[in-house]
Amino acid sequence: MTMLQQDTKILIVGLGLIGGSYAEGLKRAGYEVGAVTRSPKTIAYALEKGLIDSGTTTPTADYIGRFDLLVFALYPHVFIDWIAQYQAWIKPGALLTDVTGVKGAIVDRIQSQLRPDLEFIGAHPMAGREKSGVQNADCGIFHGANYIVTPTDRNTPEAIETCMELGRILGFARISTLSPAAHDEMIGFLSQLTHCIAVALMNCKESHHLVDFTGDSFRDLTRIARINDEMWPELFALNKTELLGQMDLFRREFERLRDAIAADDTDTVREMMRTSTLRRSFFDK
Amino acid sequence: MTMLQQDTKILIVGLGLIGGSYAEGLKRAGYEVGAVTRSPKTIAYALEKGLIDSGTTTPTADYIGRFDLLVFALYPHVFIDWIAQYQAWIKPGALLTDVTGVKGAIVDRIQSQLRPDLEFIGAHPMAGREKSGVQNADCGIFHGANYIVTPTDRNTPEAIETCMELGRILGFARISTLSPAAHDEMIGFLSQLTHCIAVALMNCKESHHLVDFTGDSFRDLTRIARINDEMWPELFALNKTELLGQMDLFRREFERLRDAIAADDTDTVREMMRTSTLRRSFFDK
Repeated sequence: MTMLQQDTKILIVGLGLIGGSYAEGLKRAGYEVGAVTRSPKTIAYALEKGLIDSGTTTPTADYIGRFDLLVFALYPHVFIDWIAQYQAWIKPGALLTDVTGVKGAIVDRIQSQLRPDLEFIGAHPMAGREKSGVQNADCGIFHGANYIVTPTDRNTPEAIETCMELGRILGFARISTLSPAAHDEMIGFLSQLTHCIAVALMNCKESHHLVDFTGDSFRDLTRIARINDEMWPELFALNKTELLGQMDLFRREFERLRDAIAADDTDTVREMMRTSTLRRSFFDK
Repeated sequence: MTMLQQDTKILIVGLGLIGGSYAEGLKRAGYEVGAVTRSPKTIAYALEKGLIDSGTTTPTADYIGRFDLLVFALYPHVFIDWIAQYQAWIKPGALLTDVTGVKGAIVDRIQSQLRPDLEFIGAHPMAGREKSGVQNADCGIFHGANYIVTPTDRNTPEAIETCMELGRILGFARISTLSPAAHDEMIGFLSQLTHCIAVALMNCKESHHLVDFTGDSFRDLTRIARINDEMWPELFALNKTELLGQMDLFRREFERLRDAIAADDTDTVREMMRTSTLRRSFFDK
């Protein structure tokens, strides 16, 4: 049972790449979509492109209070501040969700400070593009992607189902649930650690002169070295303990391989290669 | 000026993925192509598919002596042994080249043991597939790829030009020359280090349960973790000093990022991200 009805009014808070893509997908699905964001230009653009029905840069009790479902697509610290400042205006019984890339540090903070007549359920749409901003919004980025709902024991079955339904409406390929802690371990390994590796690799040396010799391997491995240096440090900091644990795990394996090469220990090098070949085979699409 | 004529006879020694792809490309270009390889099945397959005009598993003076240009597509230690055993049968004035992925350790060893009436010039076709063997041979893998000739002061201008012409005939996109040392530094960073990173990452943990949460970033970064555990340890060992230097360089940058995250030193994290973003931008195709 979901609370989504044809006349459910949805507010997107933060019209960037992800917020804009949510808006586009939800408008196409027939919902009334509003927006709160910082820049008047963003509102003007989104109205012109038909991504939203209305929008404002100045939240008011009247405007905020109209919406049944609120999607927060903000930087984590802005999200927390926003709730503290404006939650009094949210319609009683409304459902709140988000798109934040880390969960443990966010979900608990929001849920524990929220009015008791509101419900917040965390979600992580695992999609993005290398370019940010509403101008690059495109609900097509959700197709084929993962959408993870991270319920806690404070969430109702109806909210969980509604949040999963939101993922279905947006066209995600796989919709699943994970605890905030399991989510953060997974994201620490699959996403944050891999971004750290790519960033460190590109920091090794001035490599412009190597461009003409570069094949797909180096390009594929470093694609994510183009990284939003506003958002990622904040996400790293919010998942610091988990990320450092994953980095240390990688460091140990990298050292093990290095030491085996240094010692001409071919058996260990080959065994590590066989392990990596076997494990990687499960990831082929 | 190149020594390649319409009637130049070319011998491929070692009919695997790369040797087979050379054979296919050279046959299509109209050359007579012979082959020496270990398995009779490989010869039968290559003949049936029209990759070669003739082939043998047992080198003879008569057969070897017919060819003007020899391409060695063997594991490095097999290549060195082959030259020691059979070079007496090679036609006087013939040109030898190879496809080996490291150069410093190979070029000098071959050139210094070769008969004075023969010439060896190293080449590295930077192309491959995840599957090996002549059954996967496909000269299309060379299109868009890099081909690097690694001359030394023992090489003649004619041999260098002939070797570069070979790359053009095979359809490589970029053909260049590098010294063996510069080649090995480049390959140590762009290829060997990146393979080490991917192998170490896949060794971190049993990750089968994460498949459904994996996006393109992790897949792209670990694609090269599927690795031929016969060939790569040998290539690592032959470029050991250079590779260990590159691994240590990476290790330092990875530590720097780790320590900055641990110390909440956002300035350093952001500075490293800005550097990686800028440097990676030059690699966009």
